[in-house]
Amino acid sequence: MSHENENAALQALKPGERFSGCYLLKTAQSGTSTAGKPYLSLRLADLSGELPGKVWDYGGPVGAEQAGQIVWVSGRVERYQNAHQAVLDAIRPADADDGCDPARIVPTAPRDPERMLAYVEGVLDKLGDLDYRAVCLTVLDRNREAFAALPGAKTMHHSFLHGLLMHTANMIQQAEALARIYPEVIDRSLLIAGAFLHDIGKLAEFDTTPLGLVSEYSREGQLLGHIFLGAEMVGAVARELCIPEEKRLLLQHMIAAHHERPEYGTIVRPRCAEAELLANIDMIDSRMEIFRETYAQTEPGQFSRQRVYAQNNDFLYRPGGKD
Amino acid sequence: MSHENENAALQALKPGERFSGCYLLKTAQSGTSTAGKPYLSLRLADLSGELPGKVWDYGGPVGAEQAGQIVWVSGRVERYQNAHQAVLDAIRPADADDGCDPARIVPTAPRDPERMLAYVEGVLDKLGDLDYRAVCLTVLDRNREAFAALPGAKTMHHSFLHGLLMHTANMIQQAEALARIYPEVIDRSLLIAGAFLHDIGKLAEFDTTPLGLVSEYSREGQLLGHIFLGAEMVGAVARELCIPEEKRLLLQHMIAAHHERPEYGTIVRPRCAEAELLANIDMIDSRMEIFRETYAQTEPGQFSRQRVYAQNNDFLYRPGGKD
Amino acid sequence: MSHENENAALQALKPGERFSGCYLLKTAQSGTSTAGKPYLSLRLADLSGELPGKVWDYGGPVGAEQAGQIVWVSGRVERYQNAHQAVLDAIRPADADDGCDPARIVPTAPRDPERMLAYVEGVLDKLGDLDYRAVCLTVLDRNREAFAALPGAKTMHHSFLHGLLMHTANMIQQAEALARIYPEVIDRSLLIAGAFLHDIGKLAEFDTTPLGLVSEYSREGQLLGHIFLGAEMVGAVARELCIPEEKRLLLQHMIAAHHERPEYGTIVRPRCAEAELLANIDMIDSRMEIFRETYAQTEPGQFSRQRVYAQNNDFLYRPGGKD
Amino acid sequence: MSHENENAALQALKPGERFSGCYLLKTAQSGTSTAGKPYLSLRLADLSGELPGKVWDYGGPVGAEQAGQIVWVSGRVERYQNAHQAVLDAIRPADADDGCDPARIVPTAPRDPERMLAYVEGVLDKLGDLDYRAVCLTVLDRNREAFAALPGAKTMHHSFLHGLLMHTANMIQQAEALARIYPEVIDRSLLIAGAFLHDIGKLAEFDTTPLGLVSEYSREGQLLGHIFLGAEMVGAVARELCIPEEKRLLLQHMIAAHHERPEYGTIVRPRCAEAELLANIDMIDSRMEIFRETYAQTEPGQFSRQRVYAQNNDFLYRPGGKD
Amino acid sequence: MSHENENAALQALKPGERFSGCYLLKTAQSGTSTAGKPYLSLRLADLSGELPGKVWDYGGPVGAEQAGQIVWVSGRVERYQNAHQAVLDAIRPADADDGCDPARIVPTAPRDPERMLAYVEGVLDKLGDLDYRAVCLTVLDRNREAFAALPGAKTMHHSFLHGLLMHTANMIQQAEALARIYPEVIDRSLLIAGAFLHDIGKLAEFDTTPLGLVSEYSREGQLLGHIFLGAEMVGAVARELCIPEEKRLLLQHMIAAHHERPEYGTIVRPRCAEAELLANIDMIDSRMEIFRETYAQTEPGQFSRQRVYAQNNDFLYRPGGKD
Amino acid sequence: MSHENENAALQALKPGERFSGCYLLKTAQSGTSTAGKPYLSLRLADLSGELPGKVWDYGGPVGAEQAGQIVWVSGRVERYQNAHQAVLDAIRPADADDGCDPARIVPTAPRDPERMLAYVEGVLDKLGDLDYRAVCLTVLDRNREAFAALPGAKTMHHSFLHGLLMHTANMIQQAEALARIYPEVIDRSLLIAGAFLHDIGKLAEFDTTPLGLVSEYSREGQLLGHIFLGAEMVGAVARELCIPEEKRLLLQHMIAAHHERPEYGTIVRPRCAEAELLANIDMIDSRMEIFRETYAQTEPGQFSRQRVYAQNNDFLYRPGGKD
Repeated sequence: MSHENENAALQALKPGERFSGCYLLKTAQSGTSTAGKPYLSLRLADLSGELPGKVWDYGGPVGAEQAGQIVWVSGRVERYQNAHQAVLDAIRPADADDGCDPARIVPTAPRDPERMLAYVEGVLDKLGDLDYRAVCLTVLDRNREAFAALPGAKTMHHSFLHGLLMHTANMIQQAEALARIYPEVIDRSLLIAGAFLHDIGKLAEFDTTPLGLVSEYSREGQLLGHIFLGAEMVGAVARELCIPEEKRLLLQHMIAAHHERPEYGTIVRPRCAEAELLANIDMIDSRMEIFRETYAQTEPGQFSRQRVYAQNNDFLYRPGGKD
Repeated sequence: MSHENENAALQALKPGERFSGCYLLKTAQSGTSTAGKPYLSLRLADLSGELPGKVWDYGGPVGAEQAGQIVWVSGRVERYQNAHQAVLDAIRPADADDGCDPARIVPTAPRDPERMLAYVEGVLDKLGDLDYRAVCLTVLDRNREAFAALPGAKTMHHSFLHGLLMHTANMIQQAEALARIYPEVIDRSLLIAGAFLHDIGKLAEFDTTPLGLVSEYSREGQLLGHIFLGAEMVGAVARELCIPEEKRLLLQHMIAAHHERPEYGTIVRPRCAEAELLANIDMIDSRMEIFRETYAQTEPGQFSRQRVYAQNNDFLYRPGGKD
Repeated sequence: MSHENENAALQALKPGERFSGCYLLKTAQSGTSTAGKPYLSLRLADLSGELPGKVWDYGGPVGAEQAGQIVWVSGRVERYQNAHQAVLDAIRPADADDGCDPARIVPTAPRDPERMLAYVEGVLDKLGDLDYRAVCLTVLDRNREAFAALPGAKTMHHSFLHGLLMHTANMIQQAEALARIYPEVIDRSLLIAGAFLHDIGKLAEFDTTPLGLVSEYSREGQLLGHIFLGAEMVGAVARELCIPEEKRLLLQHMIAAHHERPEYGTIVRPRCAEAELLANIDMIDSRMEIFRETYAQTEPGQFSRQRVYAQNNDFLYRPGGKD
Repeated sequence: MSHENENAALQALKPGERFSGCYLLKTAQSGTSTAGKPYLSLRLADLSGELPGKVWDYGGPVGAEQAGQIVWVSGRVERYQNAHQAVLDAIRPADADDGCDPARIVPTAPRDPERMLAYVEGVLDKLGDLDYRAVCLTVLDRNREAFAALPGAKTMHHSFLHGLLMHTANMIQQAEALARIYPEVIDRSLLIAGAFLHDIGKLAEFDTTPLGLVSEYSREGQLLGHIFLGAEMVGAVARELCIPEEKRLLLQHMIAAHHERPEYGTIVRPRCAEAELLANIDMIDSRMEIFRETYAQTEPGQFSRQRVYAQNNDFLYRPGGKD
Repeated sequence: MSHENENAALQALKPGERFSGCYLLKTAQSGTSTAGKPYLSLRLADLSGELPGKVWDYGGPVGAEQAGQIVWVSGRVERYQNAHQAVLDAIRPADADDGCDPARIVPTAPRDPERMLAYVEGVLDKLGDLDYRAVCLTVLDRNREAFAALPGAKTMHHSFLHGLLMHTANMIQQAEALARIYPEVIDRSLLIAGAFLHDIGKLAEFDTTPLGLVSEYSREGQLLGHIFLGAEMVGAVARELCIPEEKRLLLQHMIAAHHERPEYGTIVRPRCAEAELLANIDMIDSRMEIFRETYAQTEPGQFSRQRVYAQNNDFLYRPGGKD
Repeated sequence: MSHENENAALQALKPGERFSGCYLLKTAQSGTSTAGKPYLSLRLADLSGELPGKVWDYGGPVGAEQAGQIVWVSGRVERYQNAHQAVLDAIRPADADDGCDPARIVPTAPRDPERMLAYVEGVLDKLGDLDYRAVCLTVLDRNREAFAALPGAKTMHHSFLHGLLMHTANMIQQAEALARIYPEVIDRSLLIAGAFLHDIGKLAEFDTTPLGLVSEYSREGQLLGHIFLGAEMVGAVARELCIPEEKRLLLQHMIAAHHERPEYGTIVRPRCAEAELLANIDMIDSRMEIFRETYAQTEPGQFSRQRVYAQNNDFLYRPGGKD
């Protein structure tokens, strides 16, 4: 085995090459060969794509139950029926000594999660309104790990590890800037609290894979939706902390109204300036992220190769052409 | 004062007639005449309509703060600037001895509220599913009086005393009948529980007048809406009673989905058969009540004199013509 | 040939097994082998699915014209190019002696058609309004067989034999129950007559296969639609029977308005209480059938595996989980 | 009485002037003066507008039942409460000797109805397809007078005497011209027959005043609508004349589809080229008439003074300014 | 005349009081009294409202042509028919010596226009991209005075003097802040140029009163709209300055896309990140201004007294209640 | 090589047949065989369809850069993996001597382009209004060749060579006919000028293949759209020719409004009669062409085999059945 091929990108491997390292076990299924021998049929995955594979003469312990986890494998690439296939000679659950880097395997936010979390916490910690501050810090304390890890969505945009955190941090940055521009109508504390809490119901809306990506909407996610779940949760925390009723209602309203329009699933339409602005801030960050992800695959001066569903199903243009 | 005119309908009084009895004090405003004397300018109301009036040389105690309450008055009707006006010689807050009948003064459900309440309670008491039964009875216990008295709406339909109760009782009747027709897909207990609970958030959505009519949407009614408020309240009761999570979610889903379509304000769309059926039952009772209220003012074989906003803004036809 | 495999479900057959019995000849095409011999290439179908097949050295009489009919076959299952294929040694049109049960072959209503028809006829026969009764019974007399046999739709829901009858019978059950709850506004006879007649235009809207399933929309079905066709037919019958004009118009209106909204293809919006209620009853039965068909393939406590197009394109939840 | 004021325009009369002549009696109501004398309170109307009036000391025979008819009056104009009022000394139903010209009193098409009717009949008489010709001529024969007289609508456009005829004649002119441009796809006979028949159901959709204007939608007009009524009537005539089924269906389809979109009330969408073109021709004539009526009250180079509801509720521009 | 009543607010004047000062002559109409004397009937206006008035025995020179201009008047307030009326003894066009303050008379932006203009110009002057800078500064140079004075709209929001400037300055502030947050996708120069230019077509879209308020949409405003007019104008300037084609197209696209959705009148939907963000910034500033104007008439802790058409026609809540 | 197979339709060729002639080189890709020899893998196309092919042992000069051009080839058809494939022995760019007929290879208008162009020019040359005439002829002069050649669209309808010309010529024919029917409201010159100019922006909206078909929307086509581009171009020409401002605005308005509704991309809605009529004429020609293209593949008396996306996604009926 050549050292160059340790943790090689799956899509870069060529027939005949050996490789080893940490990969996501996407699916696995045991079978029996015509010769009566057990084998494992599987799919490996990393950020570059997927690769089907076989482990001949193998009866376990790795099997279907390990799907969604990281494994350490070693083997060779072959051509089989016009496609590539891995033939593995070893497979086992990865352990700490393997030094696996999840960011090589599953999509991850392009910014450092610890710095983003520190920023968010720093802003909340200095919120001028102590009631809003108390609610935010309580919610953060109780959900710190999940909040920092969760993707922002199953597909569309921010569907990578720490996506929710990145989306939230960006929105708080916007909130700080815009509250300065509209001081006559905007209560900075309320706006920032809303930005922090608006998607908190997503913690209950998703089921996740062992690696933290969204696998499916949860039962309560489908039956009630993250907007309701978030507003209910924040209402409960606010009551527990005995903050004044108007402030509790405003926090719940910020969450309940943040999708702005009934056809986008809002519970109510924004009735105060902070709720209206929050809905716009949310829209801005969603759209800017869509452009970021699209531009990453588009040359300057060109249109995107695909229509972008979440941006009006249009081809998008990346400025920067030569003329 | 002739006895015939005790509690006479205001619209039936003619100039020159005296009258006395209990009426709603719709508005009242103190003033000072050009001669420097205090007077009270007011509007009386009963089911037949309104009548402006004056109490000359009157400094109190009845004034603007009594608006919305029932008063006992005595006076005479005059013609003033092409319209009728009452000139009162006595006015005071009504008391128990006056034997005022609110049903003469404010719109009231056309069915006996006690019988309707007994019916609802009877059905809930025999619900087969003990978890759903516990939630329903707890909610009823804690809100019996308000639930029995509240109108169903500010305008549109069921906007009379006991309107919410009548709407709920009708829906439970429907639920019982339809659960028998679709036993393969409908859990009768869940459907009936949903019918009872679906509008329970209206208890918090409205501000009411002293006589119990809806005066305005409340602050939480406007910021969160009765669908959210009801689903949140039922969620809290269900948690308190420790019923299984799936049942709690289903009850909350029934409420959250009962307006069916985003453009009608639903939080989520119906995902189970009972939620879908509940939304239809709600629609049916609303529409049948609109027809009942419209037909009350339409001859058989004729179209309604006005377009009916809540029924597609159409003229409605009351069958029963002679040909 | 083992007796177990007489009329075996096609999807359950394994390579090497022999089978015989009645199946739908889905398609058939004659060909000539490289050796110059005639053969028949075909697809068999039953409720379990389809199976391609060959009859070697066969020149007829069964051929493309028999597609859509039931045949009796005998043969063996082989594996060919990674799939199953039947190789038949006998094929002929099924006859009475074969005792073929269509319910094994094409989808059929889950209730006994004769009992449903008897129920419908019984209700119509006792309709209080003799004019409405006369129209209904005349329409039934002239279309009994087709009415009892036709599916309710080409796809979506009720797309099985006797589907129209089942849909109609359910709606009449609803009509009976709801007319009792809203006697102030609902004329029971008119509502039930509307429930019986509302989809009668479907008799002209569909072309059917020899086995009675909907193959395609007919020319008049596409150019005028079942709502128009039904209202026109009922108008003609009512004129022929000389019922009063208002009743004729009301019957036609019930049909013309039963899709409620222009975007659902209604001709007019419901203008009387019975028409409004009929539209809701129709919606309820459609939705309950969608849930019935979906739940049949969904475990309790689970969401449907597919989005359900006719129910908002959502995943549907079947209550009954363990928690 | 000066001769200049015989049949004077009501809006041009000034206080103090006498007048006489034929006018529409818009409304009339008998009353009794404080002195106990009978009088008639009424409103006269002609094309220029309306004028309220009184006939003092008058007990009949003209009264409320004559509303909608033409009367001959004589009297004087006075100023009363800042407005004009007629005080009549004579009123009686107009008779033939009065030589009343309805075109001075009610709005009338700007073209000669006899010439328009002759044009329509001439085109139908020469239709190449004898089946379509037979249906059209039969329908015309049976409805000649009403067809020639009816307005095209209650409000919006063509709401004057002979409006339906003018609209139809214009559409037939368009049909002749456009059939020449698209001979590959358009059957001229079918298109012209559709143009003639498309609004024929309006004969049953309206109730009219004694002078022939639309007073209200009729019962069948509201319960079924002119599109259904027309397609049903033409279907009956076509069956009576035994024309081939396809041609009957096409004629009915032309009518059923001529509003093009569900939101405009179409029964089906156009499925053949003639139906599609007919819907466009109808739209064109409606819009051109709206502009004609609007331009009549707008100077060249100016926008209309009012928003025009039927043209997107916009201000319309009449070209022809000086720059 | 008391000095207190110099330039008094019109709504604050009481019957019997004298007043003098500068006011807007809203309308004026000459007449002749029954005594044959000329008089002027007029309406004065200032920010507090309007007041009808008369100048008896007055033949000019002030008349209908001065409507929309500022006049100096002196007179007295009387009560006439239950309302206030001014009876003037002097009226003449205001001149420089009167020291009239337009901000007392017509609505004016709440910020200093000179500082706002200096800010805008300062930012444009330092734009990093010299092509975009050249276009912006050229447009500003050619339209400085009108750009600084024009309201932002006829009604809705920013409908006061300097409204367009205030709207533009706010948007540039936003653009500066948000460009810092999304540097991966946003070209700061393009975004700021777009913010400056996006509504520049309004200079041609409105007709204005002598005092600078919007009186009406202009002919080209109605026939082409400010979006088209702006994009066309900027295209012409860019061609004149020979900036690269891509940059010209991007500037035009920013303007053409800034209403985002077809139903809001956009010419195209945003295809690049800067255009998308610009549309959101525009929405934010519009909405924040609506809240600012609404809150100015709403107490903390209360809902607005009126529905606010431009914010979903809802009642809006101003946070800050006592609980 | 048989002479019958010179320029044979690709879909008609059978395995074993030789052929030669001119074809479109749809795509081409060079490769190296396992034996190390260069080859060209390509797709040929003509109106009948496409055919994949190989040129063995071929190193050029024809390659990927010639894609989209016409080549002359000679070779043989083989069967390869259940499909047809050409094996060519010669390939070279076609030259004038080959006498290639593009109409055999790419879709072309069914009418003679020279006659259509002569018709259009003839009408414009005789336009009564000299200002409109000047603008039209100037635009035609500067774009004659491209205008005559361009397809009308990328897909949908008129997507063949000379499609824009055919669409424009048809619309001018309509304009001439309809201007005669509505002389009170239609300025014939303005309507015809609008018909000629309405899609002129398409000259800039498309990128084309070497053979003149639309390959893609251009950058300015996507960023600004043909409606804007056309109105801007015509505005520039009109300014250059110094025609009166109102006429310039009307011409620009005709273009800007010709898609009628915001959801169809119109810039403004039609405000004058000519603009309204133009939008309808455009719709008619689009729809008639859709029917023409659909009927070409549908038997009389039948529905189209496919749903037609551009006509409401319906199946369309071609009249002419036997009954």
